[in-house]
Amino acid sequence: AARLREYAGPTIFSEMTALAQETGAANLGQGFPDSDGPPELLDAARDAIARGMNQYPPAIGLPALRGAIAARRADDHGVSYDPDHEIVVTAGATEAIAAALIGLCDPGDEVIVFDPLYDSYSACLAMAQVRRVPVLLEYDGTRFAFDPDALRRAVGPRTKVLLLNTPHNPTGKVFDEAELELIARLCVEHDLIAVTDEVYEYLVYDRVRHLSLAALPGMRERVLSISSAGKTFSSTGWKVGWACGPARLVGTVRTVKQYLTFGTGTPLQAAVAVALTDCMPWVEELRASLERRRDLLVAGLRAGGITTYPSHGTYFVQMDARSFGSEDGQALCRALVTEAGVAAIPSVALYDDKAAGRHLVRLAFCKDEDLLSRAARRLAGHARAARPL
Amino acid sequence: AARLREYAGPTIFSEMTALAQETGAANLGQGFPDSDGPPELLDAARDAIARGMNQYPPAIGLPALRGAIAARRADDHGVSYDPDHEIVVTAGATEAIAAALIGLCDPGDEVIVFDPLYDSYSACLAMAQVRRVPVLLEYDGTRFAFDPDALRRAVGPRTKVLLLNTPHNPTGKVFDEAELELIARLCVEHDLIAVTDEVYEYLVYDRVRHLSLAALPGMRERVLSISSAGKTFSSTGWKVGWACGPARLVGTVRTVKQYLTFGTGTPLQAAVAVALTDCMPWVEELRASLERRRDLLVAGLRAGGITTYPSHGTYFVQMDARSFGSEDGQALCRALVTEAGVAAIPSVALYDDKAAGRHLVRLAFCKDEDLLSRAARRLAGHARAARPL
Ligand SMILES: CSCCC(=O)C(=O)O
Ligand SMILES: CSCCC(=O)C(=O)O
Repeated sequence: AARLREYAGPTIFSEMTALAQETGAANLGQGFPDSDGPPELLDAARDAIARGMNQYPPAIGLPALRGAIAARRADDHGVSYDPDHEIVVTAGATEAIAAALIGLCDPGDEVIVFDPLYDSYSACLAMAQVRRVPVLLEYDGTRFAFDPDALRRAVGPRTKVLLLNTPHNPTGKVFDEAELELIARLCVEHDLIAVTDEVYEYLVYDRVRHLSLAALPGMRERVLSISSAGKTFSSTGWKVGWACGPARLVGTVRTVKQYLTFGTGTPLQAAVAVALTDCMPWVEELRASLERRRDLLVAGLRAGGITTYPSHGTYFVQMDARSFGSEDGQALCRALVTEAGVAAIPSVALYDDKAAGRHLVRLAFCKDEDLLSRAARRLAGHARAARPL
Repeated sequence: AARLREYAGPTIFSEMTALAQETGAANLGQGFPDSDGPPELLDAARDAIARGMNQYPPAIGLPALRGAIAARRADDHGVSYDPDHEIVVTAGATEAIAAALIGLCDPGDEVIVFDPLYDSYSACLAMAQVRRVPVLLEYDGTRFAFDPDALRRAVGPRTKVLLLNTPHNPTGKVFDEAELELIARLCVEHDLIAVTDEVYEYLVYDRVRHLSLAALPGMRERVLSISSAGKTFSSTGWKVGWACGPARLVGTVRTVKQYLTFGTGTPLQAAVAVALTDCMPWVEELRASLERRRDLLVAGLRAGGITTYPSHGTYFVQMDARSFGSEDGQALCRALVTEAGVAAIPSVALYDDKAAGRHLVRLAFCKDEDLLSRAARRLAGHARAARPL
């Protein structure tokens, strides 16, 4: 279809992983961990398969999983949801986002997004014939931040949804309370729906706290909070996600998703229910370990004279292509795969404002420490060689 | 969104399964089997989880699975596909259909469908703002058949796709060679793409053979053949499906599906690859057993004086509400749940032409023999009681 022409071809993540596999490069591109989730999770899935949980789940998800999600949202974010009407299980957060955008918007509507943005957002907006209105997250010397006036100016008569990703991929930015309050006020003022992608909700560092926009006063009724098991339990290939919100928003997601996929892996849903209930201490260990691995990678890059940007959450940290004598992150990424044996993601692939993202390169630190050390050494060596003496 | 208003609320399958669970009725509604797939399949999935196949699969699917699909298509249908460019794995056939319709059509295009049609087709066409043009399958006293002239008249300047489901849900019709040739000629003549939903490809009875439209002369380049593991290996909850076709069509499905879900259950994909290679004798046993179960159910209904319609494939057979003294299959289904303890699907829910489907009721025979016998007795009793003496 004409409206999807620019999305033809594999995603940047598929492309870089394929390149890494062909060349044997250390894959710091696509965000997936090198080690699997908690043994209880894996055992529960194996058990569920053996116990005969292999037929269609309810389209809205297994009751046990919806109950476990409700408990987590209540305990960890202080927001209560009725598991029967205010929670829907999806084929990963990706499907929840697709179903929300397709279902909530009419052709010609507008959706506000923070730029850079995860690649599926734009593609789903194109499917739904919705215009995206980007608000840039600009680096101000200490953090990535948006201009409140730019955000206000982004709202127009056709604005239906504000799409917020926090913790934010690819910057690692965790939106703070003041920022969320500003966003919340704007949503209330203009009667906007907020769709929040919170898949990295538990992967935050430096004692920063992830706040769910739904937890802010007055926001529960207008926020659809999306998350998944993939990042929380290192099971990115299971595709068990969910959306929580008032029944009218969750009902819209259900309407669409029941015709996109109907349901998602029954035995895997059963296992995620167990993990959400029993494995949160494991998640805290994962979080701490990821923080250490981020530090390891960043220290290695800095030692090599490479500029990095602050990341307080997610799997990712960005570095500056200019430390390699290049203005062009895309060209640098191509060179790094073959010449340094490291695969990374040119952040510009996720930027609407290509000039703003041109020099940024995203690295995933959800990998084994050995691999991270090796990659940091190679990058440092490459940067040193590229710099004028 | 306005274009999806009529799709709000749970699907007829979810609704009837929920009713059956509440009332304890024998569930002959939603099509899922009472017993699981082959032990090799279940063991392979458990192994894959233990062996660490839990992170993102390639968006197009695991290479082993694509290879196994190619081998089956070649051996069973005589059509060869390049696993790297002509096969894409999806979250069940449902996602393949959604991605195909969203990706191949532009708003305002038309798609020809045979009526009755599986519920997700209409919903996906509405998402894509595509007009569906139904061609009725009318019962002619021996079989459900379409009027060739009606099919020809259905083609217009905006027709992009012809959507064919064979073996056909809910009628159990298996399109024969003459019908497929007629369809093929029409596609060639008007340069149409055919999308075929073949999820019941191996579940055919009475020595009838399922032919894939792609196998007809000249059709390989214009057919996207969709199938899945759910029905073939009694694993409806796993959501592992696929689409095969020329690279331009498969590429379109990939473009959309990589943003709807990205991938589907990695360890389940690995297991389906094993089953497609090793478990086809098990599938033949399943097929034979389903044929016996269809016969058991139909014999029980006939003994009770209930008119049934011929079904040569799928999980389903239809009966006539008029045998219960009712013109209205929908009202009958409501009564049957509470008064006879049997849940069924009013076929009219799947009909575009409501008058044509009004008196038809779909029963699933993919259930245990005990349950089928009990359900048949209850239905026969109910019909007898309802008929004038
Ligand atoms: C689904 S592939 C992309 C994975 C991911 O979340 C990322 O690398 O940003
Ligand atoms: C995905 S629920 C519907 C299952 C099915 O194929 C049917 O009952 O027709």
